[in-house]
Formats: sequence, C-alpha cells, structure tokens
Amino acid sequence: MAKFVYDFTEGNRDLKDLLGGKGANLAEMTNLGLPVPPGFTITTEACRHYLAEGSVPEGMEREIADHLSALEGAMGRKLGQADGPLLVSVRSGAKFSMPGMMETVLNIGLNDESVYGLAKQAGGNERFAWDSYRRLIQMFGKTVQGIDGELFEHALEELKHGRQDTDLTAQELQRLVETYKGIVREQTGHDFPADPREQMRQAVMAVFDSWNAPRAVLYRRQERIPADLGTAVNVVAMVFGNLGDDSGTGVAFTRDPGSGRQGIYGDYLQNAQGEDVVAGIRNTVPLQDLEAVDKSSYDELLAIMETLETHYRDLCDIEFTIERGKLWMLQTRVGKRTAAAAFRIATQLVDQGLITLDEAVTRVTGDQLAQLMFPRFAKDGGRKKITKGMNASPGAAVGKAVFTSERAVELAGQGEDVILVRRETNPDDLAGMIAARGVLTSRGGKTSHAAVVARGMGKTCVCGAEELEVSASGKRFTAPGGVEVREGEVISIDGSTGEVFLGEVPVVDSAVVEYFEGALERRSSLGESEERANGERSGRDHQTQPDDELVRAVDRVMSHADSVRRLGVRANADNPEDAARARRFGAQGIGLCRTEHMFLGERRQLVEDLVLAATGEERQAALDALEPLQKADFIGIFRAMEGLPVTIRLIDPPLHEFLPDLVALSVKAATGEATEKDRALLAAVKRLHEQNPMLGLRGVRLGLVIPGLFAMQVRAIAEAAREVPGATPEIMIPLVAAVQELEAVREEAVQILADTGVEALVGTMIETPRAALTAGQVAEAAEFFSFGTNDLTQMTWGFSRDDVEAAFFSRYLELGIFGVSPFETLDRDGVGRLVRLAAEEGRATRPGLKLGICGEHGGDPDSVHFCHEAGLDYVSCSPFRIPVARLEAGRAVLAQNDSDTR
Amino acid sequence: MAKFVYDFTEGNRDLKDLLGGKGANLAEMTNLGLPVPPGFTITTEACRHYLAEGSVPEGMEREIADHLSALEGAMGRKLGQADGPLLVSVRSGAKFSMPGMMETVLNIGLNDESVYGLAKQAGGNERFAWDSYRRLIQMFGKTVQGIDGELFEHALEELKHGRQDTDLTAQELQRLVETYKGIVREQTGHDFPADPREQMRQAVMAVFDSWNAPRAVLYRRQERIPADLGTAVNVVAMVFGNLGDDSGTGVAFTRDPGSGRQGIYGDYLQNAQGEDVVAGIRNTVPLQDLEAVDKSSYDELLAIMETLETHYRDLCDIEFTIERGKLWMLQTRVGKRTAAAAFRIATQLVDQGLITLDEAVTRVTGDQLAQLMFPRFAKDGGRKKITKGMNASPGAAVGKAVFTSERAVELAGQGEDVILVRRETNPDDLAGMIAARGVLTSRGGKTSHAAVVARGMGKTCVCGAEELEVSASGKRFTAPGGVEVREGEVISIDGSTGEVFLGEVPVVDSAVVEYFEGALERRSSLGESEERANGERSGRDHQTQPDDELVRAVDRVMSHADSVRRLGVRANADNPEDAARARRFGAQGIGLCRTEHMFLGERRQLVEDLVLAATGEERQAALDALEPLQKADFIGIFRAMEGLPVTIRLIDPPLHEFLPDLVALSVKAATGEATEKDRALLAAVKRLHEQNPMLGLRGVRLGLVIPGLFAMQVRAIAEAAREVPGATPEIMIPLVAAVQELEAVREEAVQILADTGVEALVGTMIETPRAALTAGQVAEAAEFFSFGTNDLTQMTWGFSRDDVEAAFFSRYLELGIFGVSPFETLDRDGVGRLVRLAAEEGRATRPGLKLGICGEHGGDPDSVHFCHEAGLDYVSCSPFRIPVARLEAGRAVLAQNDSDTR
Repeated sequence: MAKFVYDFTEGNRDLKDLLGGKGANLAEMTNLGLPVPPGFTITTEACRHYLAEGSVPEGMEREIADHLSALEGAMGRKLGQADGPLLVSVRSGAKFSMPGMMETVLNIGLNDESVYGLAKQAGGNERFAWDSYRRLIQMFGKTVQGIDGELFEHALEELKHGRQDTDLTAQELQRLVETYKGIVREQTGHDFPADPREQMRQAVMAVFDSWNAPRAVLYRRQERIPADLGTAVNVVAMVFGNLGDDSGTGVAFTRDPGSGRQGIYGDYLQNAQGEDVVAGIRNTVPLQDLEAVDKSSYDELLAIMETLETHYRDLCDIEFTIERGKLWMLQTRVGKRTAAAAFRIATQLVDQGLITLDEAVTRVTGDQLAQLMFPRFAKDGGRKKITKGMNASPGAAVGKAVFTSERAVELAGQGEDVILVRRETNPDDLAGMIAARGVLTSRGGKTSHAAVVARGMGKTCVCGAEELEVSASGKRFTAPGGVEVREGEVISIDGSTGEVFLGEVPVVDSAVVEYFEGALERRSSLGESEERANGERSGRDHQTQPDDELVRAVDRVMSHADSVRRLGVRANADNPEDAARARRFGAQGIGLCRTEHMFLGERRQLVEDLVLAATGEERQAALDALEPLQKADFIGIFRAMEGLPVTIRLIDPPLHEFLPDLVALSVKAATGEATEKDRALLAAVKRLHEQNPMLGLRGVRLGLVIPGLFAMQVRAIAEAAREVPGATPEIMIPLVAAVQELEAVREEAVQILADTGVEALVGTMIETPRAALTAGQVAEAAEFFSFGTNDLTQMTWGFSRDDVEAAFFSRYLELGIFGVSPFETLDRDGVGRLVRLAAEEGRATRPGLKLGICGEHGGDPDSVHFCHEAGLDYVSCSPFRIPVARLEAGRAVLAQNDSDTR
Repeated sequence: MAKFVYDFTEGNRDLKDLLGGKGANLAEMTNLGLPVPPGFTITTEACRHYLAEGSVPEGMEREIADHLSALEGAMGRKLGQADGPLLVSVRSGAKFSMPGMMETVLNIGLNDESVYGLAKQAGGNERFAWDSYRRLIQMFGKTVQGIDGELFEHALEELKHGRQDTDLTAQELQRLVETYKGIVREQTGHDFPADPREQMRQAVMAVFDSWNAPRAVLYRRQERIPADLGTAVNVVAMVFGNLGDDSGTGVAFTRDPGSGRQGIYGDYLQNAQGEDVVAGIRNTVPLQDLEAVDKSSYDELLAIMETLETHYRDLCDIEFTIERGKLWMLQTRVGKRTAAAAFRIATQLVDQGLITLDEAVTRVTGDQLAQLMFPRFAKDGGRKKITKGMNASPGAAVGKAVFTSERAVELAGQGEDVILVRRETNPDDLAGMIAARGVLTSRGGKTSHAAVVARGMGKTCVCGAEELEVSASGKRFTAPGGVEVREGEVISIDGSTGEVFLGEVPVVDSAVVEYFEGALERRSSLGESEERANGERSGRDHQTQPDDELVRAVDRVMSHADSVRRLGVRANADNPEDAARARRFGAQGIGLCRTEHMFLGERRQLVEDLVLAATGEERQAALDALEPLQKADFIGIFRAMEGLPVTIRLIDPPLHEFLPDLVALSVKAATGEATEKDRALLAAVKRLHEQNPMLGLRGVRLGLVIPGLFAMQVRAIAEAAREVPGATPEIMIPLVAAVQELEAVREEAVQILADTGVEALVGTMIETPRAALTAGQVAEAAEFFSFGTNDLTQMTWGFSRDDVEAAFFSRYLELGIFGVSPFETLDRDGVGRLVRLAAEEGRATRPGLKLGICGEHGGDPDSVHFCHEAGLDYVSCSPFRIPVARLEAGRAVLAQNDSDTR
C-alpha cells in the first residue's frame, strides 16, 4: 500500500521529489541529530492524487492521524488541548522553491479554550497567547477560507490607531479576536472552526489547492517548473521566538552570499517570530551580536552551521528560532548567492577538499559569468541613490534623463548619452529605446514591454521603480525625499541591482572582462601569482582585493570547463577586430562571418550600381569592383584567426536592403527634390520591393538569380586564402530549402576552388524548416550544417523578431505562453525538434557531418546544453558570449555524466 | 547470374521497369503474334550498372553477342555482311516516355562494303543504299561521337544547292558519304568505324550515356521522373518504308484522341521513313487512304489495332512501317488524348465491357476535368488564326492588345478588356498581368516568367509565339503573312491550344460547368435523357452533340467517384453566393470562411476606428458597430449551407492591411494635402508598420493583444447560429504556434458559446511549422485541425508567395529545383512530412480528431491524393475546384486499392 506520510525521521534530502525541498531537508537535519521540532511530511504524491481526483487518497487521513498521535506522544501534549496545547504549523514545500507562491498557516490548534492553555504554558503571557490566536484566524481566514486579507488588516489598523503592534494589550487583542471571528462568520457564513483537527485538515487541503492558484501556475510557466509535480505539506510542532528576551529568531548563511567571503553571515531579532523579520517591524542585529545575549545557543548554532556546510558541501542558508534559550532549526537549504560569490565559493570549497573541480564547474552558471562581464558602477565615490526598481536588464548606464522617444532620438543624434524615463513603454517608444543608453520605468514588472525589449537589445533597464512619479508632459520625475529630476539632468541606473542614482556614477569595466581580454598573455603569469597567493594566503586581506580572487576563481573554473567540454566554441565575427577579440576570449574559429556587412558604408554605391546594372557587362563591372574589397576583408580575418577555421556565409539579405528607403525616395519624387539617380533608384526600389523581405529574394535565391554574385564572393575567399598561409575557409550557403538549390550553387563554387587550388568545405545553413525536414537529402550536397536558429525560430513559429518582440512578446510572457523568448533560449519542442531531426538524418546520409549552430542561441546557457545533447560539434556566438558558451559546454558534459550515472 | 538481355519473345508489358516502355510493349506485341521485326532489349539494370560503375556489367557483352547471333539466325543475314547485310536500329526506351530526350541510331551495319549489299538487297536501288549510309554517318556522328550536327547539315545544304533531298542522285549521295567521313575524321581524329559490331557497341553506350545528358536530367527534374531508373536499349532489325511506292510508314490511334470518337485515326506517308514524317518533308495522307493503295496491309493493320485495343483495354497509338507490302509494327503504347476524349473513351470502354467503372475513374484526371471547365472559343464563326504559341495557362481571353504594363492598367481601369502582349515579361509587368484578361509573349517556354505567373493567377496565357515580332516602343506586333496588330486592336488568345486569333472570337461557357451548375436539379432529368440516348444511339450523330455525350460521361464518372471516395470535399467560401455555388458543385460544407473579407469596402471605416481608438470605450464602440454586420454575414452563409458544417476562421491578417498605404499617406503629408484624419492614420500606419507583416501581429496574436476582437466575432457567429435552425458552425483559430495560445483564446470562446447555448467545435489551423511539430500538445486544446498549407508552405520553405513567384519561380523551374510550384502541388517531402506528423501525433492525443486541409492545395489533384494517403477527413478548395477534388478523391481510393493489391 502506498505511504503518504513520512515522519521527519523517515525521510532524507534525496527524497525532494516526494517530500519537497523543505521536508527533505528537515528530515536530513533530523537524521543528522540537529534540533528540529518534530513533525511529519505529507507527500507530493498525495497532493497529485488530490488534484487529479478531487479527493484525498484512501488511507491518507488515517496515516496523518497516526503521525499526529506519534507527534503528540513525543511532545507530551495534544493538539489544541485546553491545558498546555500542542500547536503546529502547516507549511507547503514543493520540489522547487516557489517563493511567496504557496501557503503557510501557523499556530494551528488554538481556540477559545486552548488560548488560555497557551498563555499558561507561556508563563502566563496572555498577550502572547491572544496575539497568536488572532494571527491564526487572520492567516487561516485569508489562506484557507479565501477571505480578503484587507478586512483583517483594516480591523487591526483601526484598533492600533497609529500605535505599534507591540503597544496592543492582551485585552485589546482578545477584542480583536472577536472582531476577526465576526469577519469570518460574515464572509463564510460559518463560525471559525474551533476543532484543532479540522483546522489542520482544512489547512492541508488549502496547501494542496494553492498549487493550482493562478499566481503559482503563472510562476511555474515562467520558471519552467513542470505543472504536475504537486507540493508536499509539512506539519511541524510550533516553537516560539516571541516568548521574551531569551527567545528570538534569525536567518543565516554559512558564508557571505554577496561576496563569497568565508565566515558566518546573518541577522537576528530578539523576541520575535519569523514573520516579524519579514515584515521589518524592528531592525535586526548582526548574528554575531547573539554571542553576547546567549553564548550557548550561539556556539551551538555555529557548530550546526559547520556541520551543515560540510554535510551539504556548499553554502547553506538556515532559519532558526530560539525559544527560551533552546535553539531550534526550522529550515535549511543550499543558499542563493551572487555571481561573484558563486565563483569564489566554488573554488574555496575545492581548496577545502569538500568538492572536486568537476563539481566546482557545476556550481556556477553561464548567466553568473555573464553578469560578471557587464561594466558596473564603481563601489566608492559619492553615490546618491534615489530609489530602487526591478533589475530588468543588467549593465550600468549613465545619461541625461529624457521623457519621450522623440527627444531621446534627437539628443542621441547630437552625441549625447540619454536615459529614457517613462511611466511604461509601448511599441511607439522603440526608436527611443534604441537611441538611449538605458531605460527606466515606474510601472511594470520583469515581463513588461520595457523589460522584454531591453533584454532583447542587451540594453540596461530598471523597471517598476514605483516610488517615482513620471510626468512626460512636465518633462520630469520625482523621487522620495523631494527629489526632482528634469529633462537633461544626469542620472545613473544599475540594471543588475535595480538601483537609480542622481548624477553621474563612475563606471568601471569588469575585472573578468579584463582578464579575458588578456587571457592569452596572462595565463602563465596568473599561474605564478597564484603560487605566490597560496604562499601568502593567511596574510592577505580578501576584502581589499576581491577582484584578484574572483579572477583566479574564474580562471580555474574556465580552465577546467575547457578541459572537460566536448563542444567547440566559435565566434560570430565579421571583421579582424572582432575576430581578434574572439580569439582572446577563447574562440576556436569563426562560425559565422556575415559578408553582407562588407557591403555597407561607402560600398553601398557599388551595390546600387549592381542593382541598377542594365546589362550583363554593367553587372559584371559592379561585381569586379566589389571583389578586391571583399578579398581584402577576408585577408584581414584570416590573418587574425591564424589558421583556425572561418565559416563565411555568402550574401544573405535582399539587395534592396542596401538601397535608400522607399518612403523617403517617394516623398522626394513627389516634392520635386529627386535627382535623376534618385528616380532610377526609386524605380529599382519599387521593382525590388517585397511585402515580406525576410521571405523574399535572399540567400541562395540571390545566388541563383543574379549571375556572378556568389562566384565573385567565392573567388574573393579563395584568392584571400591563397595569400594567407594556413587559412582555413569554410563556405556557407544561406537559406537553402531544397538540396537542388545547394547543388546548383555548389558546383560553381567547387569549380572556382579547384581552379584556384584552394581547399574549403562547402556547406549550408539550416535555417528553413524544410532544410531540416529534408536534411537527409541536403546532406548529400553539404559538407557541414550550421543551424541558423534565428531564422529557423522565426519560420518555425511564424513570427519575425523585429516585428513581434515589441508588439506582443511582453503580453505573451504575461500570459505565460512562453517563459522566456524563443529568440533568447532555443525552443526545444519546436525548433529543437527540427535541429535533432536534421542532425540525425544529416549524419545518416553523411557520417561525421560537421554540425554547428550560429544563431544567437549559441551563447545562451540552456541552448548550449541542448546543442551538447543534440550532438552538435560546436556552437558559435558573439565574442562577448564566448566565455559563457565555454563554461556551459563544460557544464553540459558534467550534467550529462551526472544524469548518466543516475 | 543476372540476365541483362531479353529477346522480344522473352519480355512482356509488365516488365517496363526492366525493359522500358518501348521494349516491354514490343515484347507484348511479339507474344501476341503481331508482326514485330525481331530484336532484343538490353535492360535498365545494365544501364544502371554502367552509369554507377563506369563499365558495363560482366557478361552483358557475351549476352548481346548471343542474342545478335540468334537474331542473325532468325533473319538469315549477318550484321553488316557485305552481301545482303542485316541492319539494326539502336533505340532508347526508358520506363517513362521522355520524348526527344534520348538517342536513336538507325541503319547500323552499313560500311563501304555492305552499302553495295544493301543496294542489291533493295533491288539495285543504289540511291536508297547511299542515302541510308549517309544517314547512319550523320546520326552516328552527331549522337554517338558528339559532333556538331550543323557540320553535316551544312554539307548537305551545300550539295542540295536549293534542290529537294529526293533530287539527289546516288552518285551525289556517295560523294556526300565521303564528305561526311571527312568530317568525322577531322572532328574525332579517327575514321568512321567500319566494323558493324563496333558501331552497335558504341551506339548502345551512347544511349546509356544519353540518360545523363543535361537536357534529359532537366526534363526528369521537371517531370519528376526519378534520376536513377536508367534506360533500356532496343536493338531491332531494320525495316524500310522508303523502298518504293509499295512501302511507307505511318502513325495511328485506335480512336480519335482529340474527340474520343470511335474508329481509327492516323496518318500515312508513302515511300518514306519515320524520320521523314517527323521532318515534314511531304504531307501525310489520312490513314484511310491506305486502303486504296494496299488493301491487304490496311485490313491487317485494322485487325491489329482492334487486337491491341482489346488487349490493352484502352486507346493505343502505334507506329508501323510497310516494307514492300509487308506490314511491320514498330511501336505501340497507350495513347495520349484530350480531356474530352479521355472522359468519352473511358465511358465507351465501360459500355463495351472492356473496363469497369472503377477503372473508368482511374482513366481520367482532375486536370482533364479542370480543362473542360474553362470557357473556350466557339468552334464555328470566322476565326482568323494568326499564329500559335505554347499553351501556357488555359482559358479563352479576348481584349485589346496593349504593349506595356502601365497601359494595361490604364485601359483596364477604364473598364476595357485588354491582352498584355510582350516579348517576354518580368516582375515589372506584374501589375499589367493582373489588369489584363490574358497574356501573350513571343519568347520563353512553359517555365518562363509569364507562364509561371499567369498559371499562378489562373490567367489565360500563350507564351513563346515565336513568329510574332513584338515592338513595345512601336506599340504593335507583326505576324506571318504581313499581319500587323496595333495597340487597341482586338485579339483573342486560346490558352488551352496556344492559338492566337485576330479580332474577337465568341467565347462559350463550358458545357461541363453548365452541367455542374445545374447538377442538383438536372441529375434526374439526365437519367431520363440517357435512357433515351441509349435507345437512339445507333441513330445519333455523336459529332453534332459531343457536349451531350461528354456531359453524360462526366456525370457517370463523377457519380462513381463520389460513391467510392472516403475524403469529404468542402469549399473555401466567404459569402452566400460562393457558398451556394459550392453546394451546386457538390461541396459537403465550408472548410474555410475568411472573416477578414467581411472587413472590406465600407466597413474599412470601422476598422480604422478600431485602430485609432484611444480608449477601451472607443475600441469597444468600434467592435460593437462591427458585430451586427458580421452576424448578418454569417446568417447568409448558414442559410446557404442548410445545416452543412461551416468552418469560420477568426480574423487573420494584420490590422494595418485595412489602413491606407504608408507611401501614399507620407506623400500626402509631405505635400501638405493631408487632412487631420490622414495625419492620425499616418501615425497609426507608422506605429503598426511591420517589416514582415506575414510574420507579424496577426491571427491568434491579434486575438490575444486586442481585447474584445475575437469575442466580438465568436458572439456574432453564435448569435447568427441561433437565428438559423440547424446551422453548424466550427470556429477556427488561425496562426497558432503553441498550445498555450490556443488555450488562452479558447476559454473565452467556449464561454460565449455556453452563454448563448450554441454548440460549435473550436479548433485551429495548422499553418506554422511549430504547430505541426507540437501537434500532440496542440490537439489537447483543439477539436479539429485544418491544415493551412499556403502559410505552412511559405514558412516551411521560407518564402512568401507574393514576393517570390514573380521574382524567381520561373528561374527555379528552369533550373529544375522544383518540377511544379510548391504552392500548386503540396511538397510531400517538406510540408507533407509536417502534415503527416501532425495528423499522427494529433490523433494520438485525441483519437478521432477531425482533420482537413484548407489551403489552395485542396483542389490540386496530386495534393488530394496526398491528403487521402495521410488520412485526412476532408479537403476544402475554391468552389470551381470542387469537382476536381471530388474526382481525385475517388481516384485516390482506387489508386490505393490498386497499389494495395500489388
């Protein structure tokens, strides 16, 4: 028969699926012999049964009754008995933490009789007992009975009449309990349940139901937590930190989660319960101050924290309560930490012999590494913080405040740095967002239009800074404390913390970027300094040189990730400068060199000539003029890459992209300002105009329709390769949808290569769904595939990134249609299915077919893992994302090993 | 051991894969005891081996030698022996007919010695012998040795000096042979091979090689003939029709392939070889005239033709030669025929008891039926034909000749019918092609720009009328015989025959369309007239009433197709008129009712209000104004369909499609002509402007972003359904890419239906690749799928129909990248794979999920077969294509039965 209830003595930390995170860790601590209040956990399986069937599974109620009896026996008190009652808390606890999403009810077991028993138990503290009772009714009414919490709050406020909670007397609280019971009666039509077991039963159901509360459903969609896990429920004997000055409550970390510094770190609040800490009623004191108050508990706590860290082999955070001098552990888990702390702690734990380097790599993430690479505000210097919003898109931006998109564009056009400040943004603000250094809004969360679009652009953004009053018409905003900022005044915003500062805060480059920039040269000297550092460790002040320690930690982790990863990492780079930077950042080649970027600037003129060519001769003349320029471009890139492979994509966009704008030319023509060339261009632009250029005459289609275009490019590549010894070009044909297209252009390319005596692979981008669906055929003519997942995503979903991110992505994120934009993280179900299918069927045709990805997904952590799992050979991404890709490629191997050994 | 050579006595007509069509049918005739010259066939397998390995398979040469010996034995003569030589022809013959693509060499066995033996054999006819010899060298030189045929032609022309071939004497032809041998020596560096076996060996290799000649490769790509079949080679004893007036050659059909009339039909040419008939040196005479010349051969031929027709149970065409009064059969096959003939012959054969009605349905095609539905020119009336081009796109068009796109647009704008006449068209002519009734070009084949685009538009087109001289600048064209047509003069073009007429030719509607139009009412009366017709058959003149017989034939075939088909056939119709016509044509429901067509005309104003709405109230007011209009639309359609299901698609296109043009508004604003509303519209158009509207804010995205829009439509549907008893609406959500989108809008729709008490399925279009790839999830929220294969094709291939058909489809067809546009016939490998996958996985989630297709492919024959095979429930197409879909749905069942029993 299934078992639905586990005593804390029966579980352990590996049972998170069944007992949830909180329950599994309470059991683990119990088994370690730590002082955990007794209790038991109702399993997620019971919850799933309840949610699916609408009733609790058979036998569950019986098991709960048995475990409650055991608990009563252990405590020597009975639940809610009139004289010295046992009270319990009912707490949710799912496998994955869903902070604030799920329900908790404390003080279960109180009623009009047991409240006196509690007072007696508490040494006659009647105020405490009535306060506990009113808390129960308030929490139960809101959470279990679904009564609007404002009704209770309002009654409390009326009673306080401006005083503090602590000023209320026992008599006043007793009256409040009566008022609360009245509210319950009025709202539900029934009395507040006096039966303690009925209170507990209803609380358990409420926790089950809270799994499907709308906010929880939405949260899971956004965080990609499966919807069918269910939550466990923990029933725990109550302990009280608010029984006097020998009581208290606190939270602590086993090391500093902000910096990673070793040594305990936490807060303590005397004579208080956990919810008081959250409410911020009084200021907490540093944990160290507990030593003076209650040395015995303090020493015990320190010993427990060391036990936990050694046992969990990681930074732990804990919640504890001291009840009249007796320490109780209420929760522990592996603690969250900042990016810098993650790297430092991981390597510290290696040095302590607690974890291996493999494990250290799994303890940090690419997102954390990316955070460390953004510029940030200097710590010192007079920073005048005026408010804090949500950290919507990281980075540090400084500029003049502007309040309209138009003004942002105007000032940016004059070379000014501006911050666009809006109540909220909408698609009309797009031009201004592009022009600005950063975006600040007073409304909207992390899925608001501003947040989504800014992240898409990689632009710094703070959103939902609700203390600000923004007036676009008044061209100003106000902040707390009478601060007013008018158009043109400088502000600074920190997208990683959400902070907003008055005036200019100095920006410093990331030490980690500096390390990567010099990585090739510095790697040996770092080795030396590390030896020195080891020798001097005891004498060093870690606080004064945190960057050095951070850089050493990053270096160790990256070196190890490089040594374990299977995926190669290449760069998307179109010029020698980017290519050189990419190499410094560790690129093993170029995965995408876009040749159309070489048609811009002064060369537009030549493209115009090409388009306007009336005869074959004129067309060839335009191509002949472009060829040496392209050749020179390739020579520069080949030299920068010193023999590493360079995948060059032949021209991809439609030619009209290089021509002047249709509207502008039409207006010129209508107002009589057009020159003869303008009129010729207008005719060409009209002729080439496409309703949907993304789905138009581009890529391989251009190569097939415009004689000589691809041949010119291939010749330029081959001639450049001849001049740079060791150059390794790979020629990539874009936008292929059918193998016949590839065959038709491949033949010419192969001939030119043969004529020039240059060896180069000829392959294709897989960026149309059809190329993926017919990959078995396409591989017959392709020596490599590179997945162009930007276009593949656009075509698979049927939306264009340019058009839709601003128009409806924020709404889609709000609705939970996706948890993250499919342009940021590769959509495994749709696009990913095509990638896997193409990889398999391509390799079935051509074993050993080289496979890579060159969409922007190549630098996204989750997508890198996908590419590893799908068996690709390399990922290619923008130079700045290369370290992220290297790290995640290593982590992907270790994650797979981990799941393989399970 | 493999067998590579089959004597004609060893093969049969079922061995087409191995022996090719010609070889299999020659063997069949041989086994029927018909007079076929002896010979043997080298198999396609031998060819495939040769092409793959570069050498002939082991044993093949030995087998050929053995069969040649047997042939020599049977004929009593040896190949090329000096005295009375055996001559042979070497003819290609693949499984599928590839007219003119492959090689043939006649008269093999002649050399400087055997030429005299041949003369003697031919009763001392030296002229004949030398002419045969020079033909061998010419054909061999060109075909086997790859010498430019012009060189031989030139030498012949010089010799003739203006005379006819027949004027050349034996001596002159002997000299010509010497000249030809000189050409061979000069061009190849070797003498013409005198050894007859070497001649034969080389000819066989040449036929093998011709399989991969560029024109053959291209032809196969275009005709979708697999590239790896290879060709067989037939070696046949030569017989001569050019040995005097008791000899001759001819081609014949067992009934009239033009009208289907019973009775033989053919041409005969006395004293000639087959190639002379092709070259048109003299005029042929009707086959009936042979009776007077050679009654015995004529009677024998008639008997043979009856044998063949009974044996093949179909119209056969034949080639024959009479050598000195002896009839020889050189070829037979099931003959091609016109559309009308196909229907008439099929039902005639049923009446004759030769085939079943099932077979009759397989003997006609949807394309043939479609041809019968186009209007055509009246047969009588003075038609002045001025030239003939290629029948590029069927139909009959009459109008004033115009020579530029601009003029076409201008005159059409004044209500004139125009025919656009161009040397060739390019994308600049698109507007003119749209404006014209038909298109006529003097250059380019059936894959030219004009042809492809016109077919795409369903516009009548004659292309490549090379006798015309078109002068756009002179606004005129000239035709043979001094005809000149100037701008504004009326011409008539027949897209089904390629004919061009001067002046207006009366157009008559199709009798078949008239039949379908009246089908519901007339079906019973037809039954009566058929009985009458059966009674009167012997007395009727089939020629005077061909339409009646045709209509009866169509009716019989269609009735039977309806009785066997499994696929339902629905219509795409957006208004009551189309719905009513669709029902008359046999539609069993509406598969696609596009609601956006209801937003045009005067209602644009309301859409503008909707877009310009500044507040929720204004938006709701605009929606409230649209609702009764939509409701009235639906009422009309429900009434027309009388309870048959009507699938209504909620609004799909982006809203800016309903607004004025950006360029026009910008010009107005720049020139100061804009009203205040214009300026507001311009701002809205700019705000809503999308780079790629097809991939933009449309379909379900609109429904999610614009509150109330979908709800208004669903309410209008539900309210309309309440007013029309029996109405069966089905609500279709367009452009879904993820099940979450569907869930989000479905909920609201279901609520409105529940509130109004109307029952309706709620389903989705599958038109993004992702919807297909995740169909298992999508089916959780969809009660039906309808494949929108237009958009699905666009997104799977990554091209938009509007942009690319004009820009590069003709080039793609030329290059053989596809044989037919994927917008005409569903691309099985790419789009089809998605459809199959979605059908399977959708039904795995929801057994019995209703599946249909509503792209234009629903009326395309090959695509209908695909839909049948993929297990869909119905196809939906434009009203005019419904009969085609019904017929092909029946044929698909019979084709499948046929392949199942094999």
